[in-house]
Amino acid sequence: MGLVVQKYGGTSLADKNRIENVAERIIEYYKKGNKMVVVASAMGDRTDQLIDQMYRITDDPPPRERDMLLCTGEQVSIALLSMAIQERGYPAISLTGSQVKIKTDDQFNKAEIQKIEGGRLEEELAQGKIVVVAGFQGVNSSNDFTTLGRGGSDTTAVALAAALDAEKCEIFSDVEGIYTADPGIVKHAEKLDEISYDEMLEMANLGAEVLHPRAVEMAKYFGIELYIASSFKNKKGTVVREVKKMEGRKNVTGVTFDSDVVKITVLKVPDKPGVAGKFFTSLADYGINVDMIVQNLQHNNLNDITFTIKTEELKQNKNIIKKTAESVSAQKVEIDENVAKVSIVGAGMISTPGIAARMFSVLGEQNINIQKITTSDIKISCLIDKSKIDRAVNALHDSFQITKTMS
Amino acid sequence: MGLVVQKYGGTSLADKNRIENVAERIIEYYKKGNKMVVVASAMGDRTDQLIDQMYRITDDPPPRERDMLLCTGEQVSIALLSMAIQERGYPAISLTGSQVKIKTDDQFNKAEIQKIEGGRLEEELAQGKIVVVAGFQGVNSSNDFTTLGRGGSDTTAVALAAALDAEKCEIFSDVEGIYTADPGIVKHAEKLDEISYDEMLEMANLGAEVLHPRAVEMAKYFGIELYIASSFKNKKGTVVREVKKMEGRKNVTGVTFDSDVVKITVLKVPDKPGVAGKFFTSLADYGINVDMIVQNLQHNNLNDITFTIKTEELKQNKNIIKKTAESVSAQKVEIDENVAKVSIVGAGMISTPGIAARMFSVLGEQNINIQKITTSDIKISCLIDKSKIDRAVNALHDSFQITKTMS
Repeated sequence: MGLVVQKYGGTSLADKNRIENVAERIIEYYKKGNKMVVVASAMGDRTDQLIDQMYRITDDPPPRERDMLLCTGEQVSIALLSMAIQERGYPAISLTGSQVKIKTDDQFNKAEIQKIEGGRLEEELAQGKIVVVAGFQGVNSSNDFTTLGRGGSDTTAVALAAALDAEKCEIFSDVEGIYTADPGIVKHAEKLDEISYDEMLEMANLGAEVLHPRAVEMAKYFGIELYIASSFKNKKGTVVREVKKMEGRKNVTGVTFDSDVVKITVLKVPDKPGVAGKFFTSLADYGINVDMIVQNLQHNNLNDITFTIKTEELKQNKNIIKKTAESVSAQKVEIDENVAKVSIVGAGMISTPGIAARMFSVLGEQNINIQKITTSDIKISCLIDKSKIDRAVNALHDSFQITKTMS
Repeated sequence: MGLVVQKYGGTSLADKNRIENVAERIIEYYKKGNKMVVVASAMGDRTDQLIDQMYRITDDPPPRERDMLLCTGEQVSIALLSMAIQERGYPAISLTGSQVKIKTDDQFNKAEIQKIEGGRLEEELAQGKIVVVAGFQGVNSSNDFTTLGRGGSDTTAVALAAALDAEKCEIFSDVEGIYTADPGIVKHAEKLDEISYDEMLEMANLGAEVLHPRAVEMAKYFGIELYIASSFKNKKGTVVREVKKMEGRKNVTGVTFDSDVVKITVLKVPDKPGVAGKFFTSLADYGINVDMIVQNLQHNNLNDITFTIKTEELKQNKNIIKKTAESVSAQKVEIDENVAKVSIVGAGMISTPGIAARMFSVLGEQNINIQKITTSDIKISCLIDKSKIDRAVNALHDSFQITKTMS
């Protein structure tokens, strides 16, 4: 029996009954002789509530104070979860990110973990306690609280698993595992028994929001096997690990989509060297994440630059994008929110000719116009009309006959 | 212009508008050139919400985890208040009890401040920032978060004023100052311009819950002048300080009452040496605060012991009291919740004969039966029927002609 790190998401801790359910699950593991480190997210929609309160006070929250505010959410969870465990007669202790000494850099709201000192945590483990750690948060060198940004609690769990050389790292949420496609949209979608880190990265980046890419990257780097399962059911989940036997696997592992994207077209930019570089560097400086970039040379040495950003980033960055476009002498900016991205993902793709062509054909047969295409070694993405996304996902899933049993 | 410590209570910070109002008040002081340290309580009823959540999980919360939970309330307040100040263009920073290094002992839920290291706080002040500190909380030598118990935020403010040698310590709440009696009950009650520490201690202990006795005691010890006023109005409040000119002051400064008390009578306890000591030591070990103790020897070497406790302490301690009574061979325990305590307070009492007699006569004239009496140098308290408390307070206020203008 070894050390197990488990992470429970906000939905799994949303109310008294769910906290008690999680406490009982943890105790089951503990009773088998495991040392237990549990990472907890904020309860249910508590983080959203805090963000609402914040935006009622200011449109431009100072990043340090934002983290001061948000890291209370996880602190409430760990205290209540530790109480629920102790109420059942088992020893537990809650620790915040600063108490565990999860040391981060100074990037408030999106801090990166530099090291975990962990002395206190290991002392408590040695005393036989179940240690409940606040996810999503750390502390910088000035003793200011930081948060790790989206998917932060997953990252906390993987970082702790690495630092403590854990035997297992298990991520529990309201999702039963990784599917070949969204089961809410594709009737024949199936749960995967296993998936490689790279495939998982593409799936997660593309909107299968089960496990955050940062956490996957860290798990890949440290070679930590992740287990993704539901905290509500005792069903087998999905293992994320380095899959050695690539031969004989299916070409396409899954179909994913993202409806929360916006297409932005910057029209008639003078075609001078370095213009695109200047434009995108400028956006990056404002922290705007850009995806699916395409540039077309038009008549008269004028370029059209098209790219996508997340819908949630549009509101606060609309003016920045317009000003940045003006700074490179663009004549117009067009914004289209009526788009979505559909992708196929699979480690076997690169060695199989014709996968891309087949994807485009399937969409064509469905009379779905492809607005943009981007590709990588293990994924192909197409931007299409938002209203046709369900049809696209189903048609692709059927066409590639993605089932785990055939893999 | 010097250093001002201000404390704002939970009602003053209950929502967005109130937080903004407080931010603007703080900025007014800051613009006059003051260095500002602001202590904030948890917003509105947030602490009660957290306590509700806690008791849904466990009837017997582990004290350390309780403090881990509760100290999130103030952390939310300081983050939002700091944001509201910065939104208005002034520099501010929030600090938790652990960041200020408010070092306490290990008594979770009722920790006592041992020292304030304060280096960080002074650095931020030196940089011209308004420093917003979480009230009610500290950190013990193991880096566990502690809370200071009831009135903790007042205590934080006074402790900071002492540690920083502040020029002023101002306690803002929804109360305009200290009154000669509850203005909701006594029509002619008047706000006092000033009151001595000792009088304030008696007033606070007796139910005028404006300023916690611990904070008053600490202010007295360090000789810190307190100013009590409303955060909602710009009206003159009450100064609490050592009042030198005792001569010529009124005998009775105020009338207070407490309806949240329960009378407990332990009947027929064998009259052996040490019995009362054993009984009350036992209650103290359980953390039960006892007031107004009277012991009467009855026939047959049997004693009746009567005392009062706060109503809120009755529920969880009823069984403990009964068992403790059995352990000293008492034959019966009677509980009477239909009582209230009325008191007159005044530093001039001790040198003025007949004050007590007059109090008893006034109650007699009102046909109010006195069940118990206790006295100190500056207060006299009577336990009476709860339904007659308003009449008692008014009659005493009239009889002693308590008005600040006559003092």
